[in-house]
Amino acid sequence: MKVISPIKHAIVEDHFWKKYKDIVADEVIPYQWNALNDELPDAEPSHAIENFRIAAGESSGEYYGTVFQDSDVAKWLETVSYSLRDHPNPLLEKQADELIALLGRAQAADGYLNTYYLLREPGNRWTNLRDNHELYCAGHFIEAAVAYYETTGKSELLDIIENYVALIDSVFGPEEEKLKGYPGHEEIELALVKLYEVTGKEPYLNLARYFIDQRGQHPVYFVEEKENRKQRVSAPTWNDENQVNFGLGFEYQQAHQPVREQTEAVGHAVRAMYLYIAMADLAAKTGDPELKKTCELLWNDVTEHKMYITAGIGSAVNGEAFTCNHDLPNDSMYCETCASVGLAFWASRMLRLEPDRQYADVLERALYNGTLSGMDLDGKRFFYVNPLEVNPYQKARKDQEHVKTERQKWFFCACCPPNLARMIASVEDHIYSQTEDTLFAHLYIAGKMKTSLSGTEVEISQTHLYPWDGSIEFRIHTGDAVKFNLALRIPGWCKEARVNINGEETPLEHLEKGYLYIHRTWNDDIVSIELPMRVERLRSNPLVSMNQGQIALQRGPIVYCVEEADNGANLAALRLPQDSDMKADYDEHLLNGIVKITTEGYRVQPVAALYTTEAPKLSPQIITAIPYYAWCNREKGEMRVWLHEM
Amino acid sequence: MKVISPIKHAIVEDHFWKKYKDIVADEVIPYQWNALNDELPDAEPSHAIENFRIAAGESSGEYYGTVFQDSDVAKWLETVSYSLRDHPNPLLEKQADELIALLGRAQAADGYLNTYYLLREPGNRWTNLRDNHELYCAGHFIEAAVAYYETTGKSELLDIIENYVALIDSVFGPEEEKLKGYPGHEEIELALVKLYEVTGKEPYLNLARYFIDQRGQHPVYFVEEKENRKQRVSAPTWNDENQVNFGLGFEYQQAHQPVREQTEAVGHAVRAMYLYIAMADLAAKTGDPELKKTCELLWNDVTEHKMYITAGIGSAVNGEAFTCNHDLPNDSMYCETCASVGLAFWASRMLRLEPDRQYADVLERALYNGTLSGMDLDGKRFFYVNPLEVNPYQKARKDQEHVKTERQKWFFCACCPPNLARMIASVEDHIYSQTEDTLFAHLYIAGKMKTSLSGTEVEISQTHLYPWDGSIEFRIHTGDAVKFNLALRIPGWCKEARVNINGEETPLEHLEKGYLYIHRTWNDDIVSIELPMRVERLRSNPLVSMNQGQIALQRGPIVYCVEEADNGANLAALRLPQDSDMKADYDEHLLNGIVKITTEGYRVQPVAALYTTEAPKLSPQIITAIPYYAWCNREKGEMRVWLHEM
Repeated sequence: MKVISPIKHAIVEDHFWKKYKDIVADEVIPYQWNALNDELPDAEPSHAIENFRIAAGESSGEYYGTVFQDSDVAKWLETVSYSLRDHPNPLLEKQADELIALLGRAQAADGYLNTYYLLREPGNRWTNLRDNHELYCAGHFIEAAVAYYETTGKSELLDIIENYVALIDSVFGPEEEKLKGYPGHEEIELALVKLYEVTGKEPYLNLARYFIDQRGQHPVYFVEEKENRKQRVSAPTWNDENQVNFGLGFEYQQAHQPVREQTEAVGHAVRAMYLYIAMADLAAKTGDPELKKTCELLWNDVTEHKMYITAGIGSAVNGEAFTCNHDLPNDSMYCETCASVGLAFWASRMLRLEPDRQYADVLERALYNGTLSGMDLDGKRFFYVNPLEVNPYQKARKDQEHVKTERQKWFFCACCPPNLARMIASVEDHIYSQTEDTLFAHLYIAGKMKTSLSGTEVEISQTHLYPWDGSIEFRIHTGDAVKFNLALRIPGWCKEARVNINGEETPLEHLEKGYLYIHRTWNDDIVSIELPMRVERLRSNPLVSMNQGQIALQRGPIVYCVEEADNGANLAALRLPQDSDMKADYDEHLLNGIVKITTEGYRVQPVAALYTTEAPKLSPQIITAIPYYAWCNREKGEMRVWLHEM
Repeated sequence: MKVISPIKHAIVEDHFWKKYKDIVADEVIPYQWNALNDELPDAEPSHAIENFRIAAGESSGEYYGTVFQDSDVAKWLETVSYSLRDHPNPLLEKQADELIALLGRAQAADGYLNTYYLLREPGNRWTNLRDNHELYCAGHFIEAAVAYYETTGKSELLDIIENYVALIDSVFGPEEEKLKGYPGHEEIELALVKLYEVTGKEPYLNLARYFIDQRGQHPVYFVEEKENRKQRVSAPTWNDENQVNFGLGFEYQQAHQPVREQTEAVGHAVRAMYLYIAMADLAAKTGDPELKKTCELLWNDVTEHKMYITAGIGSAVNGEAFTCNHDLPNDSMYCETCASVGLAFWASRMLRLEPDRQYADVLERALYNGTLSGMDLDGKRFFYVNPLEVNPYQKARKDQEHVKTERQKWFFCACCPPNLARMIASVEDHIYSQTEDTLFAHLYIAGKMKTSLSGTEVEISQTHLYPWDGSIEFRIHTGDAVKFNLALRIPGWCKEARVNINGEETPLEHLEKGYLYIHRTWNDDIVSIELPMRVERLRSNPLVSMNQGQIALQRGPIVYCVEEADNGANLAALRLPQDSDMKADYDEHLLNGIVKITTEGYRVQPVAALYTTEAPKLSPQIITAIPYYAWCNREKGEMRVWLHEM
């Protein structure tokens, strides 16, 4: 098996992503630091760092926050780690170092490090894996430690975390004296694979495998665990004992059956993503064909039955969960930002199992749509839930109360903003991957990088105005001439791609799973890719009942929406003729610079009657669409992605 | 002011309604008797009659059921009263008499009669009007007593109930020593007007007016009442103290502002209907123009903004309530059967304020669609919630759990089946009304009746096959020739009506609010009405976002739906061409005899992709539609009312 490795040191010079990466460095990281330190006015207090101070004996007071409050600190550290790669900031690094030192002082003598249990239920460690996120928080700290070590070379956090993992490894495993448990919220599994990657220590991989394969074995561990809890005094958890797991059974945690037998994506969408990432990682590390097959089946289920066109997933607020196939309501779904971030990460991991355009297409769909929509253009306000249709004038029904019509400042349960921040800060990690002699270009994000291919150092740069323009130039520079494959993804959305090398056209008939493999001797070469960006009209599968008779607009990787700011109120009354001509123009002043789409359409004229036999009267109206990710950056108003065709 | 009186003694010989009335007499009444006596296997026990036995000291045990369990007994008695008019049944009448005697024995010495308080909280009478339905149950007993007296001439129940009302009148009212309360669930107000009608006793009308005008005065009585409850030990109620009134405030009970200031229908839909009925009744009795105006404003709000095409109302399960204008989702609404029954009753009452077709059109819409859908064709299973779209294969989202995809046997909260039964048993009461010299024919329900017009006895019969055929014959027979107005409603759905008298065409240009007034001297005459029943394509107002691009079929008063049984699964994939020819054929073997509609349409062919740029491929398909009320009488499957047009 050829090992496919990601390339983590690309320099982003992309006009689209650079802005976001700057915002994360300049706005989001300081903002979140203030949040973690309870220094945001008018926002939910976090208390996350204060919890560590109390645990370290350096402050008094009580634990406050969700049971997974620690993970906000970990995600902040992870984001800082990525950001420091291209935004060096000694002051920030010092803050991080001091925070890491605090974590060290908060850590128990035996390595344990979870402030909820240290402060709130010191005698109850590992007694409620189902609800209390101990292993989940540990996983986020592992990810942070790996990232901080990779960026700075400093091992303090890695040492702290390896001590903690040693403790965890002594508690869980197949040996008779150990607990047969696994996390209620997956995360540590994928983190352990990362820790194995950076340390080369096999026990970490074995523990990841143990957690994955133990999951869903019968009798389900959480049942036994609950029985054992009866002999203790435990604080009540978020999990309602009258309706455990939101009535979803152990499907909620993907623990209803052994992981390798699972073929349908079920339960809490973020949990599912983190599990599937770990499975893909383990399959990539071990070459396990069964696990790879399971990942593929689950991938097909998510992307063919359960994914919004924005790459939103999780259509039910109840349990923030997947529902049944093709159940994709646009106004009452969940589509948590974290879930789309997870989907992007999973897609990127699937590409390490097998370079196949379908994964990169979804990765791109998530990056440019359903994840970014979670943040405003200033990086100051965030969506948890990413609807495809809102009407803020409607007094919300109870089943839509979770759908906010404006981004919020900070959340009591603050998982999404830091998750999005770490994704943006590390977006370059998904652009390329490679084997010994093949370089895969999955994403078109401008910038440069160096790597070694067929034993020779190669410099590669991308220049373009993607995602607004599809003219892409790759420059390949090698010291000595060297043979390798350059595998370029031809996006699934582009039917008319053209590629030439040093001005000479290359045929595109023979794509391999959507990649054009250019095998040649490279030296100083220019590869030009033309990806014409037509405005496409997308239709849903006829089984998606909510979207019938409607289309969504997509141009390049960008999914569009219409907003009241451009089109007036009552967007449901807009009608798009089947043959209307679509104009796409770049407007540098609009929403930080976007291509907006305009077309001649109609609006159904208002009528008084609630029901009428009369044919609707139509007035001509220019319909203006903007990128979905940029919605709700002007005044509050209606928005919708799916438009009625006529 | 001319008093418009309903005519309550028409004999129904209608092939459509006769069947339903027979079912109520032969199936529903005995079935519900068994339910009230806990003799139904596999169904929720009712305990309603046992509660009275316990209260009478004739049985031991504890109260069981909802706080309004008594009302099921009352509604059964009311239904029996109507049914006995045309289905004489000495055995049933004896059962009723014995039950009435039991009520008498259960009644407290001071007249009080509510088994919940008699048995469960004897010291707490009148301390929780907001939640505990005391006055509501009293109202239903008043309605039963009036109906039983009107049918049988027996006054035992009326005596019992007048004693109870005397007690209530001594407790509530403007006098200083009395409570300033009013019911949390309206019902007694309209019942008191009925009691006034049959007894002529003014205090009943005054008490009704007091309850209506006191409602919503500030400070809201329920606040003071809650304060007072703190000095008592009360059982917890269904109203969650953490989210009182489902978070809807006093709008839930229409007590947020004085009734005469209300212009928008809000809160619990059944409560709202019962209040509006009482307001219309009071306005009709007193000629109060302000109250009439308020009724008209509320009517417009409901029927122009908040009513499904089936006459379903109440689009939110939360609080079984109205939401905002044009918020009419088809798959997650409430549309309680009781609410549509209430709407039918309200429409009929509005006709007593003013004969205006808009009221009769809604009355008819409710009778033939959203009420009847609440019962299967055998009268054995019932819907509480009447969706316009179901897909039983979809694992229900939490926000749709209340929407059942099959009718159920009996409910713990059994309000709807008896409510529907009493509506069917008394459907003839809505056909005609009259002043001294004008007879109004509001509904086309075949049968005959006698009344006095301009001082002369007149016999009138209707013959037709309505609602399947629009050829209607009225025969008017008078002993002596007599001048009076016959005012015929020309239904709003019919654009091509023709009327002739004794074979001679009458012009229809001058309709007065949708009624054709025929002023002449009558003796032995035949009036023929032709109401051609074209299949109409109805569209929703463009503000109803859920229904855009879709049409509903209506023929005569009947709203249609498509079912999987006729059209296969995935009904959302059906496409109806704008110009398709509609065939309407009577099929006597289908669903107890219906006109079914067939047309040449298309079905979008299945595709694998979740999203595609390819235009949908269509296969021709005959689309078959059946009356909405008759859905779910064959195998379980999909159903939808709104169909995609192309």
